[in-house]
Amino acid sequence: MKTTLLAASVAALLGCALACGPALAEGQYRNPDNTNPKDKGEGTYPVPYKKPVVAEVTAQLKAIRAHMDATTPTRIISKRTKQPITDLKTPNADAIFEPSDGDYGIQVYEMGVVHSGLLKAAEATGDQSFTAMTQRHFGFFAQTLPYFRAQEQKFHLERANSFSRFLDPRSLDDSGSMCAALIRARLAKVGPDLKAMIDTCSDWVINKQFRLGDGTMARKRPQEVSLWADDMYMSIPALAEMGRLTGNRKHFDDAVNNVMGMSSRMFNAELGLYTHGWHANLPDAPRFYWARANGWAVLAMSDLLDVLPKDHPGYPKVLAQLRASIKGIAERQSGSGLWHQMLDRNDSYLETSASAMFTYVIAHAVNQGWVSPTTYGSIAQAGWAGLSTRITAKGQVEGTCVGTTLAGDMVYYYHRPTSAEALHGYGPTLMAGAEIIKLVTNPAFEVQHKVRTYHYMPKGGQTDYREHH
Amino acid sequence: MKTTLLAASVAALLGCALACGPALAEGQYRNPDNTNPKDKGEGTYPVPYKKPVVAEVTAQLKAIRAHMDATTPTRIISKRTKQPITDLKTPNADAIFEPSDGDYGIQVYEMGVVHSGLLKAAEATGDQSFTAMTQRHFGFFAQTLPYFRAQEQKFHLERANSFSRFLDPRSLDDSGSMCAALIRARLAKVGPDLKAMIDTCSDWVINKQFRLGDGTMARKRPQEVSLWADDMYMSIPALAEMGRLTGNRKHFDDAVNNVMGMSSRMFNAELGLYTHGWHANLPDAPRFYWARANGWAVLAMSDLLDVLPKDHPGYPKVLAQLRASIKGIAERQSGSGLWHQMLDRNDSYLETSASAMFTYVIAHAVNQGWVSPTTYGSIAQAGWAGLSTRITAKGQVEGTCVGTTLAGDMVYYYHRPTSAEALHGYGPTLMAGAEIIKLVTNPAFEVQHKVRTYHYMPKGGQTDYREHH
Amino acid sequence: MKTTLLAASVAALLGCALACGPALAEGQYRNPDNTNPKDKGEGTYPVPYKKPVVAEVTAQLKAIRAHMDATTPTRIISKRTKQPITDLKTPNADAIFEPSDGDYGIQVYEMGVVHSGLLKAAEATGDQSFTAMTQRHFGFFAQTLPYFRAQEQKFHLERANSFSRFLDPRSLDDSGSMCAALIRARLAKVGPDLKAMIDTCSDWVINKQFRLGDGTMARKRPQEVSLWADDMYMSIPALAEMGRLTGNRKHFDDAVNNVMGMSSRMFNAELGLYTHGWHANLPDAPRFYWARANGWAVLAMSDLLDVLPKDHPGYPKVLAQLRASIKGIAERQSGSGLWHQMLDRNDSYLETSASAMFTYVIAHAVNQGWVSPTTYGSIAQAGWAGLSTRITAKGQVEGTCVGTTLAGDMVYYYHRPTSAEALHGYGPTLMAGAEIIKLVTNPAFEVQHKVRTYHYMPKGGQTDYREHH
Repeated sequence: MKTTLLAASVAALLGCALACGPALAEGQYRNPDNTNPKDKGEGTYPVPYKKPVVAEVTAQLKAIRAHMDATTPTRIISKRTKQPITDLKTPNADAIFEPSDGDYGIQVYEMGVVHSGLLKAAEATGDQSFTAMTQRHFGFFAQTLPYFRAQEQKFHLERANSFSRFLDPRSLDDSGSMCAALIRARLAKVGPDLKAMIDTCSDWVINKQFRLGDGTMARKRPQEVSLWADDMYMSIPALAEMGRLTGNRKHFDDAVNNVMGMSSRMFNAELGLYTHGWHANLPDAPRFYWARANGWAVLAMSDLLDVLPKDHPGYPKVLAQLRASIKGIAERQSGSGLWHQMLDRNDSYLETSASAMFTYVIAHAVNQGWVSPTTYGSIAQAGWAGLSTRITAKGQVEGTCVGTTLAGDMVYYYHRPTSAEALHGYGPTLMAGAEIIKLVTNPAFEVQHKVRTYHYMPKGGQTDYREHH
Repeated sequence: MKTTLLAASVAALLGCALACGPALAEGQYRNPDNTNPKDKGEGTYPVPYKKPVVAEVTAQLKAIRAHMDATTPTRIISKRTKQPITDLKTPNADAIFEPSDGDYGIQVYEMGVVHSGLLKAAEATGDQSFTAMTQRHFGFFAQTLPYFRAQEQKFHLERANSFSRFLDPRSLDDSGSMCAALIRARLAKVGPDLKAMIDTCSDWVINKQFRLGDGTMARKRPQEVSLWADDMYMSIPALAEMGRLTGNRKHFDDAVNNVMGMSSRMFNAELGLYTHGWHANLPDAPRFYWARANGWAVLAMSDLLDVLPKDHPGYPKVLAQLRASIKGIAERQSGSGLWHQMLDRNDSYLETSASAMFTYVIAHAVNQGWVSPTTYGSIAQAGWAGLSTRITAKGQVEGTCVGTTLAGDMVYYYHRPTSAEALHGYGPTLMAGAEIIKLVTNPAFEVQHKVRTYHYMPKGGQTDYREHH
Repeated sequence: MKTTLLAASVAALLGCALACGPALAEGQYRNPDNTNPKDKGEGTYPVPYKKPVVAEVTAQLKAIRAHMDATTPTRIISKRTKQPITDLKTPNADAIFEPSDGDYGIQVYEMGVVHSGLLKAAEATGDQSFTAMTQRHFGFFAQTLPYFRAQEQKFHLERANSFSRFLDPRSLDDSGSMCAALIRARLAKVGPDLKAMIDTCSDWVINKQFRLGDGTMARKRPQEVSLWADDMYMSIPALAEMGRLTGNRKHFDDAVNNVMGMSSRMFNAELGLYTHGWHANLPDAPRFYWARANGWAVLAMSDLLDVLPKDHPGYPKVLAQLRASIKGIAERQSGSGLWHQMLDRNDSYLETSASAMFTYVIAHAVNQGWVSPTTYGSIAQAGWAGLSTRITAKGQVEGTCVGTTLAGDMVYYYHRPTSAEALHGYGPTLMAGAEIIKLVTNPAFEVQHKVRTYHYMPKGGQTDYREHH
């Protein structure tokens, strides 16, 4: 009993040591790129510190894809009997999407990010099987939309209707992320034509979401007028993709305006970080630098720059804002390559979903030429080193903070549970892996392993190690 | 033996884990306000994360009161024989106040805060038994002052005279805090008329304390001319109460001038924190953000604003300074709701007395309308969640840093012992609990438990959770 | 087996607790300057918190000297046979300096700091035996230079020639630090006349090192044009000593210009810290506040001010820059008196070499009157308290980060190994101990132990503890 208690205590403490980041200079990994096994100048690491190997990254992405695929059924069943419903002619009040073992919703905003990640993985690897799940899900939507619409007209189930987000969207969470994914799939010619769904969700984002007077997306919770940094991702990519789809520049204007409206209120320029939210009734509130909110912010800006015309007057402003954010985030990377739940608090746990978004965005910014490979290349690589330890052999992504509301105290944020069932980690990890493959194969620079570390050297640079002993 | 060593090591580490704040997302408490015991979105906490329950807070305050009452005798004994001395006619050189088991002095500045806390607890709970100890102590002072004055005239014991602080005050520590308490009790009609003592201590604060040329309270230690942020509390509340007692505005002017003179030299506006002290011979010294000094600073400003006429020209200045300080302090709250010994160092221990002062001042500022309930309400609540774990069933307040001088190195500050005999924790905890009762019953706003956290919503605000899945 | 695992786990965690700095308020040391063993107001410490005792410091310096002396042979051997080579007439391609057991090179830049430290130890203690090793090494250089020159002319061994740094210098690492040491020894009349070596290394620093257009010392690695804060020490002391040796002020101009050129690009004035390096191709990169780089920076400025004429127009600028740096560094001292590997990250390990340089420079700045003893005196003393625990009875200096390149990610910096064979720790620790002896015997101020801590009181200051209970 005493031993058990001791063991439990030690386990708790080791858990802490693992969760809080390595404080020791020692870890379980040795860098295989250093071919001298006796080199006393080489450290050991808590994460696989090495140049990412394309085949290994690809294998991890495939494992995630397989896990997602296996745990996201696309069937209609009876909520009551759990039996499949195949008659799509007659609406049945009990008909629901078959739930996922992993509790992953197929129309939630997090799944929109998964589809965007799968599209990127297909592009980076050239392996079109990555988009098979997107085809399957979107095909299912096309097939079942009329059925659930009829169900709703007959039974008025509201939120209990499995298709409610696209029959009766009520928030950016319902609409923006999946809207961007639907447009991306459509333009990539993956899956059926889902114009009806795109019309519904884009209409909410463009026309119906509650906003501040200056057009900034807002919510009526938890205070009467609140901004959420998360809403940068829940709106801006959808607006950007609508701009791309329709060619109508007003959507780009709206997206840029939201980058500016959100940033002016929530970005701390001194730290280079976003606070989670803002309330009109206390604009100068204490700030909570929740990692994932910062992830959504930079991912939104990155997605926007991908499609924003370079001659748009907002382009340099968004680019400057993204650069400032990336610098702030990069400077808070932990010694394991991951980032902490609260970015400025190294005693909060290391969180996966935000780390994945940061790794993706930094790698992508390097690949796009928005920031220099110098230093940022190795920071992205270090991010992947940490992130890769969070992907299990079965393709689960661990250590992701579960759904988290805009709160007002540190006890809440520090103690949000983590779970491999938190879908927020999956899409960003797919994106990060895909972008890392592009990074280490990018012909614009050379990844040098020299003096036991990595240097991302722009092509054409002439260095000289002749002096080095 | 090996097991013992192991156990000791583990205990030391667990002590660390508890002392330094939770790094894991797990703790021993589950929020009882969440009625779904299987909710995977609910975390566990190292402190009781819940809306404070008035009956529970009251019970803890009563336990503290009982502990204080039981450990602070009011008797005269012989230092030599330890026997009571009842003859108050004939001065005896051996006569002293009977010492407290808990080593709590009945005339020390910390006890002044206890009396102020008891008065607040009586007000918040409506239970006048909270002031019984104040009546007993102050009655004892009235009864024994002539005796100790005669002892002093005959034997010249100086510091060894138990009543020395009010026969021969020599510092703000001797006079300011108890002076404010004596005036508060007098105006609340608790205890006898102690005008003689008030005259003595107020005279020291107003006329005799060493000051800078501009009137800022100073000390001749540890350097020739030093300021201590602690002295904001040791002077400003006494001056403020003298203003209230006499109606003479010069005392308010002096109090405001000290807020400004102290803050201009010791407040780091960028961080929103006070350094512990300032030396005229090194005005730009490295800074030490000792938690308790910040506690004294904000408590002093809060006490001043309670009685400062709103039309006083200093009112908006003091209010702005308090708001800036509260924001800086709030942003450094730990994941357990408590604050660290060094506010900017999360590897220093979590300290009780400062946490209590912060919890009181933030809750009070919300209740007074000086700051918005939005965010600050939940920060005060989180403070109490942490603080409540430091109160034992016997009413002891644990984890308080013992008396600490103005020092110049981190080794000293990090390693100050903590003790339940450090009286500094008791008064502030009484104040914090009393104010938390007012907070959760304040009709000006609604305490909402929504989406697993707390929102202090100003009355009249219209929120909308219809969108939330 | 289970017990073993447990023990290992606990050891790992204790290792962490020791490496990361004390989070508890408890340690194994009690302050012997407090003569009351029952004083409840006295803490316990993880380091010997006390006024440094000259005899103890001297004994530790002697132990280091003895260890260095014993592990740095000055003999020529055959690389092949390991046998001594005594024939210095006939060049032999196999002839090398006999390697050190401790892997300490006798011509590396770190050994230059050791010689500078030995000279200071001799000066502080009056014990000339400290310079015996300098005499031996430098005598060996004088004796063997012609031999290795002949070897090089005959065999062209380049970097494999043991004397290569002074036959064919290629970098500031090859030249600057030892150059300063050679000049210092010469001016102190320690060892033979090594003008030939001084000419070679000073020529490299003055004329041949790659520089920016404005004269700032630069490197062609890891990027095409990079600055290293380390190079402040690798160049400025050599330039300063050349100024002293020759009286030619252009060397002082060059040294001052390098302080300014380096600081304008790498010093973060807000934090008071230097980032490790700067790249022309990404001037606004994320910053890495590596402790040792900051050590080199302040040591360089301190060395320069030691010899820079007070009427040089650069004097006040260098002094201001040193003061700003010292303040930033002082504010990041850990609770053990040591500093962290990454100065702004308290979850990185406590590093010896940087801590030694900071302790030396702060103590020296106090002794020279560049900064006030108030506060800085106790910070230097606390630094030594920590540092003294890193010196073993055998004179080894533990906990020093091994040779570290200018990198671009935190995983690398956090996990650099530490070793007692990292020579970087030895010279600075000798310097720190020597300066601490001067500090505690400095007649310009009084070291007071009062109220359980230390106050460095400028002479003439009148304090008053009469008020203190």
